[in-house]
Amino acid sequence: MRSEIEEIIKRAESAAKIKVCERDLERILSACLTTQNFWRIVDLSDVSFVVVAHVLKQLKARDYINVTENKIALTSAGNRLAKTLGCSRIRELSCERCAGKGIDIEKLNEISRGIAEKFRELQKNRPEPKMEYDQGHLTCESTLARVALAIARGDVERKKILVLGDDDLVSVALALTALPKEVVVLDLDGRLIEFISSIAKRENLRITALKLDLTQPLAENMLHSFDTFITDPPDTLYALKLFLLRGMSALKGEGCGGYFGVTRRESSLRKWAELQKILLRYGAVITDIIHNFSEYSNWGYMDKTEMFELAPVKELPKDIWYRSCLFRIELLEKIEWNAPAEREGVYTDEEYIGSTSAVKGGG
Amino acid sequence: MRSEIEEIIKRAESAAKIKVCERDLERILSACLTTQNFWRIVDLSDVSFVVVAHVLKQLKARDYINVTENKIALTSAGNRLAKTLGCSRIRELSCERCAGKGIDIEKLNEISRGIAEKFRELQKNRPEPKMEYDQGHLTCESTLARVALAIARGDVERKKILVLGDDDLVSVALALTALPKEVVVLDLDGRLIEFISSIAKRENLRITALKLDLTQPLAENMLHSFDTFITDPPDTLYALKLFLLRGMSALKGEGCGGYFGVTRRESSLRKWAELQKILLRYGAVITDIIHNFSEYSNWGYMDKTEMFELAPVKELPKDIWYRSCLFRIELLEKIEWNAPAEREGVYTDEEYIGSTSAVKGGG
Repeated sequence: MRSEIEEIIKRAESAAKIKVCERDLERILSACLTTQNFWRIVDLSDVSFVVVAHVLKQLKARDYINVTENKIALTSAGNRLAKTLGCSRIRELSCERCAGKGIDIEKLNEISRGIAEKFRELQKNRPEPKMEYDQGHLTCESTLARVALAIARGDVERKKILVLGDDDLVSVALALTALPKEVVVLDLDGRLIEFISSIAKRENLRITALKLDLTQPLAENMLHSFDTFITDPPDTLYALKLFLLRGMSALKGEGCGGYFGVTRRESSLRKWAELQKILLRYGAVITDIIHNFSEYSNWGYMDKTEMFELAPVKELPKDIWYRSCLFRIELLEKIEWNAPAEREGVYTDEEYIGSTSAVKGGG
Repeated sequence: MRSEIEEIIKRAESAAKIKVCERDLERILSACLTTQNFWRIVDLSDVSFVVVAHVLKQLKARDYINVTENKIALTSAGNRLAKTLGCSRIRELSCERCAGKGIDIEKLNEISRGIAEKFRELQKNRPEPKMEYDQGHLTCESTLARVALAIARGDVERKKILVLGDDDLVSVALALTALPKEVVVLDLDGRLIEFISSIAKRENLRITALKLDLTQPLAENMLHSFDTFITDPPDTLYALKLFLLRGMSALKGEGCGGYFGVTRRESSLRKWAELQKILLRYGAVITDIIHNFSEYSNWGYMDKTEMFELAPVKELPKDIWYRSCLFRIELLEKIEWNAPAEREGVYTDEEYIGSTSAVKGGG
């Protein structure tokens, strides 16, 4: 059985083009012991989507699992394999009140009564997620939780806040609290700029929304002028680095905070480590990493993605399965960086498959 | 007022012997806007204890605050200073059910009914925290929460777990779940080894407790033989590095996890950044940092510490104020390291003042 395990890992690794370890296989099988729903298996295993897809393909070819149209079921050989690897059902012990976030969005009412209802109402006619920009937005609860966390950390009240890319409408939720001194949004998508600006005008919110491609340098007057940034970059290392350095270079200096999400769906922990090294090299320190803090609504163009093509099942996800972990960083010093960047690479790497077609189709 | 602010920072910095920034001053004043209790100010500001103490000394000398025996009160000049710096009351928005941990320890009952009561009962006659070893243990709730988190992350069930230093009695809580394959404890304190061993024997728990000074290399058979480690080192960079490398070198390799607490009380974010660089350099990645996850019971020898001498008030803390943030790391590769270390440095650096006397007195 040892050589069989090694073979599964080797083949999955060469197909996925990223490193796979025995613990990945263990996690995927543990998830299979817990649920038969493919999307939930990806969610629970916390292993990169490409790796899960290719490991399951190997398991199927060796009759360790049966795959019907909608379900993944361990065979008795699969159950034995899981036992050999020391797998066990995944036990979720997260707090039901806050869904494991540690933050209570109900308490936002102490700051601005009815803010959640107001935000849900205002976002109703938001532009549909566009494959071209690899959009796919946070649920309203996740956007509000992000704002609540930033308030609790002292990064919102009386602060100048920059939002880099805002299909999540964080800027609207921030401004509804009436706490920030100023909120500025940069986004490539003219529809969003228009939507946010029109809400700001109608509701009298202090938001300035500007159209900008983040591959371009920031205007001089934006450098070193914000207290806080918030962003949710595409999950390629290239885009993460680009968005974060733009955000960091906009901050005034030491003690200023930045918030962003990174998934386990399209980023292995090796990519995480690279990202963490970059952050430290540029003078930031990581103060918080909150697992599965953010949940994403399922997006309309899912059936057209390479991700769906790779999935072993032919059913679209019904429940939330795409989550990200929330990072907060803090600067230890002012950073000097404002280089232009190539557009190539923003939407592609081995693991990032949400919308490879975005690059082919648009962009 | 600008030059006054700069002067306060400069003087506090030179007295504390670590870097102080304007944002530190802002945080301390924001905490003063929120509470008059000194220990709570340290807690809420999240600035190093030495820095808080020296900044308050400067603020007092300039009549920005009044200090009575027990309370810190902003004067009207202090309130103006806070306004100039853009301070605001600190808003705590954490979930009350889980106290911001994101984990529900009640759910441990699904694994082992009555585990919390049992653990509280068993720990009642634990050895008193000893200044010599810089002990000061987690509350029972925090120990149980740490165990619950490790279970949820898949690092406990059917796993071999190493606990490095265990005045928190994590080993007992782990073993009570009956999930681990094996739990091994290493500690320098013979009283703890005896206490844990006697509980293990009486309650028939799978724990092996061994007396070991962690400055000494691990036995060959402990290297690369565990799935998970848990530790709570003294907050000097030297001790953090030593305990963590010992734990990491005991792990089998890629995908294995480690848990430990780091405070903001005795570690500035500069120290955090150094620690994060070390972790990444030795092939680990940080997967979780949960703010204020762990709470420490107030310890009996507090009135004999240099910390208490530094405090501007003469009242001992009544409520919990000493907290740490929980880190989870994961190895990306097996590490080869088993060097002996010096004992000097384990209990001292600029910020770490809990028991400087420990080094003088004992150890």
